[in-house]
Amino acid sequence: MHHASLDREGMRALRYAGGAVRLERGWPVPVPARGEALIRVTLAGVCATDLAILGGYAGFDGTLGHEFTGRVIAAPDAPEWVDLRVVGGINVACGACPACLRWERSHCEQRRVIGIRGRDGAFADFLILPVANLHPVPDGVSDRRAVFVEPLAAALEILEQTHLRPSDRVVVVGDGRLGLLVAQVLALTGCEIRVIGRHSRKLGILAARGIPVHAGETVDLSGWADLVVACGGGREGLALARRLVRPRGRLVVKSTLPEPAPFDFASLVVDEITLVGSRCGPFPAALRLLAAGVVEVEPLIDAVFSLEQGVEALACAAGPGTLKILIQP
Amino acid sequence: MHHASLDREGMRALRYAGGAVRLERGWPVPVPARGEALIRVTLAGVCATDLAILGGYAGFDGTLGHEFTGRVIAAPDAPEWVDLRVVGGINVACGACPACLRWERSHCEQRRVIGIRGRDGAFADFLILPVANLHPVPDGVSDRRAVFVEPLAAALEILEQTHLRPSDRVVVVGDGRLGLLVAQVLALTGCEIRVIGRHSRKLGILAARGIPVHAGETVDLSGWADLVVACGGGREGLALARRLVRPRGRLVVKSTLPEPAPFDFASLVVDEITLVGSRCGPFPAALRLLAAGVVEVEPLIDAVFSLEQGVEALACAAGPGTLKILIQP
Ligand SMILES: [Zn+2]
Ligand SMILES: [Zn+2]
Ligand SMILES: [Zn+2]
Ligand SMILES: [Zn+2]
Repeated sequence: MHHASLDREGMRALRYAGGAVRLERGWPVPVPARGEALIRVTLAGVCATDLAILGGYAGFDGTLGHEFTGRVIAAPDAPEWVDLRVVGGINVACGACPACLRWERSHCEQRRVIGIRGRDGAFADFLILPVANLHPVPDGVSDRRAVFVEPLAAALEILEQTHLRPSDRVVVVGDGRLGLLVAQVLALTGCEIRVIGRHSRKLGILAARGIPVHAGETVDLSGWADLVVACGGGREGLALARRLVRPRGRLVVKSTLPEPAPFDFASLVVDEITLVGSRCGPFPAALRLLAAGVVEVEPLIDAVFSLEQGVEALACAAGPGTLKILIQP
Repeated sequence: MHHASLDREGMRALRYAGGAVRLERGWPVPVPARGEALIRVTLAGVCATDLAILGGYAGFDGTLGHEFTGRVIAAPDAPEWVDLRVVGGINVACGACPACLRWERSHCEQRRVIGIRGRDGAFADFLILPVANLHPVPDGVSDRRAVFVEPLAAALEILEQTHLRPSDRVVVVGDGRLGLLVAQVLALTGCEIRVIGRHSRKLGILAARGIPVHAGETVDLSGWADLVVACGGGREGLALARRLVRPRGRLVVKSTLPEPAPFDFASLVVDEITLVGSRCGPFPAALRLLAAGVVEVEPLIDAVFSLEQGVEALACAAGPGTLKILIQP
């Protein structure tokens, strides 16, 4: 059997351990437990969280990678999934804690997160996930698009959390990988949106879609926006984003700062600002938008590296001005 | 005329100027401009903001005081208000800026705030306010209760900003003046509420009303609450409040910290916490709750000082464990 032969040869996995990242060969192919599927990874994406992990974030130890698309090659309890093209939710939940019982599985107290917390990720030939985490990819959505489902879902999470009106004024601060997805998704509401970034090449991707962009802080939008999304730029990005929010407006924080940052609580109270932390979002909605072709992701792909060149792929993704780097096993 | 004679004698006003507070006598009685009313102050309340101003907050200069009830004695353009008992919204708005045009007058960009920003306050014999700011006090609501309308409205603002479900778990951190009002108002939703404070006397006021209280941090409610309100305790109070919020829960901030405090944005994002700054609220609703007798405020009154003893009243209010101090002109 194909699967058995793979077991003997082992697989390749880009692993982070002991403070170093390395491509391992002959790593054991994982065996699906009850309710799990074995997935052959077709394409995976590098994101800021992967790079943060290399810097010590989350104390992770194992195979990196959480953005992927692949094909199910074994699912002992759910054979109907075999051969399907899939993407997969990255949070593996316990199913029994208070968060799970209120169906907020991404906040499971015992959760493992592939490539981030306690569970091997997708920068490998194979990956294990519970069948409950899987979503079939429609034929019309290519692998190069499907690999964006996870970050696109994270962008959609904003609209799960807060009501954006078609007449709202919105600013996205940051023109990185996530900022470009957030801007496209929010623009679909019909809102009046502006994007503030630093790189004319990245902003050009949005400008080409009719989204108004500003390079640098040349424009003064202080207090202009009903809703601002902070998608990067560290402390300065967050401070800029805060300044743009009108009184009683909302500031959605997508960028994670590695350390606590000073924050002006007095002005939060006086201006009655709402601050919303935002993380993982709904995969099915992301797949629908990709299938509908209303979100453009391919221009974000800067390069595709083979898994053999995984270490180089991470280095490239960390370069200034780089957008999405893909890894193909 | 009564009014004219007052003009000649002047009035008393507890004023903060040049870093010092002083009771002025013979201060000019203000003259109502177009659309304004002259109010004789019956009773006024000291709040944490007044004490913060004495410490330099808001850079205010003028007559202190913003919590009051009184009687209209002149209203040139609105004579139907004369002789009515009133309370008054503290924000005096321009009526023309973007905030005013969307009817968020408490966030007027040009606003003056009595006793806080650019406008004389209520620790005086007389006070001027636009008639548009006034609300008649029903006969059934005594002066000693009406003087709580402003802080009670601030407590109600939480429910203007966020949907509290009868099945929600709520913690109020802080047993000061505002915390006791917030706890009572939120308990009216039927939610499962707990109050964490430091003073058994203050907490006893709530316990007597059947609201569960905890003195000190003896109870571990980490991650227990759907909604937490930070009503004081400075940085420590805020940090405690944050710990009690469950993932995807809400943290309402009522306490203003004088300086920026360190805040963990990574955990805000990972736990998808919503942070809501909250300030002034709806007076009519506060009057309705007082008239209905479902909120108890009189046990909060620790002492009533005459205006002559205004400086002593402020000193008393600043003492540890003091609840509400009233000033009677
Ligand atoms: Zn990611
Ligand atoms: Zn769980
Ligand atoms: Zn006050
Ligand atoms: Zn205004």
